[in-house]
Amino acid sequence: MRKDKLNELKKYASELKWISSELVNNKNRFVSVIPRKYTLNNGIVIPREQILKNNVDGSAVIVVPRVKDELLVTVEPRVFTEKKVAVSFPAGYIEANETPINAATRELREETGYVSQAMIELDAFYQDEGISAAYNHIFFADNCEKKYNQKLDPHEVVRYMTFTYDELLELENMGYISGSNSKLALCRVKKFIDRG
Amino acid sequence: MRKDKLNELKKYASELKWISSELVNNKNRFVSVIPRKYTLNNGIVIPREQILKNNVDGSAVIVVPRVKDELLVTVEPRVFTEKKVAVSFPAGYIEANETPINAATRELREETGYVSQAMIELDAFYQDEGISAAYNHIFFADNCEKKYNQKLDPHEVVRYMTFTYDELLELENMGYISGSNSKLALCRVKKFIDRG
Repeated sequence: MRKDKLNELKKYASELKWISSELVNNKNRFVSVIPRKYTLNNGIVIPREQILKNNVDGSAVIVVPRVKDELLVTVEPRVFTEKKVAVSFPAGYIEANETPINAATRELREETGYVSQAMIELDAFYQDEGISAAYNHIFFADNCEKKYNQKLDPHEVVRYMTFTYDELLELENMGYISGSNSKLALCRVKKFIDRG
Repeated sequence: MRKDKLNELKKYASELKWISSELVNNKNRFVSVIPRKYTLNNGIVIPREQILKNNVDGSAVIVVPRVKDELLVTVEPRVFTEKKVAVSFPAGYIEANETPINAATRELREETGYVSQAMIELDAFYQDEGISAAYNHIFFADNCEKKYNQKLDPHEVVRYMTFTYDELLELENMGYISGSNSKLALCRVKKFIDRG
């Protein structure tokens, strides 16, 4: 691991850690829960609760961008994790009437200002199949170039950096890459990188 | 893929599909949502909502059991998925005062009646790091033997079968293995199986 890279990451991690929190009384919730009971073909009835994000499934895209020989990652506050901050890949929710590949192109541009010349879908999966219909897509964005400024939603705080694949495995071992989406994307892109 | 295996799976899939559902008015929700605002070290304030399952984080274990030369999987209703049913590995929530390895041993026994002679942790990860503190552990359970009867919670409907690793990759391609937990477990166990 290059020392300057690790120092830059630690600087962002320090900046983005939360230091205090308080309950809010918010009527417009981002996450909501729908309780239903389902009758199976064999007659058994089971209760299941479904979470919605912003009143929809919350299907997302995860984009693994390659910039020259390195992969681009984001550094964001992840308030529920042990480190309070995580390294992950550019990602975001698919908007209404948007295809997964369009969402991937948009999220990459908004979160980093980069544009890819070849966007390839590597896999798709349910985020948490017991309580959600969110179905996420992993893309590899090859030959990325910086063309625009970052353009974030309110409440999004995103830093970005590039690392080699082996450095990302080190960050995974250090606990900086800890989410299911990032870990699965790292698995899938390995195969791809091995191939070409 | 062996034909008799695929036929058995299809029989379970047909049996466990839901055919009707209705909203319920349930005060005792399994999933709840806590809205807070967090002040970061750099002064920025961000709102985040946390989901709890049964009033706790909902951290879980995923167990990949090897029975002779095959891996054991479960077949369960997954009401929010396209197939309505999914193939996954024995899994469940870690109970209060339980270690991850104890939970893995218990869940394997309850869901399948199998006992392992060597339980090895392969990885751990956040299920959905933006909205949850659930931190899941993947175990490889080697040399499993059937010793007990299945012992399920109410509302758990679990069938189980064994497949070769390559057959599981086929099931993944067919969309039967579609959840992040199962896919990441399949990634992690491959390495393990390749080694020995």
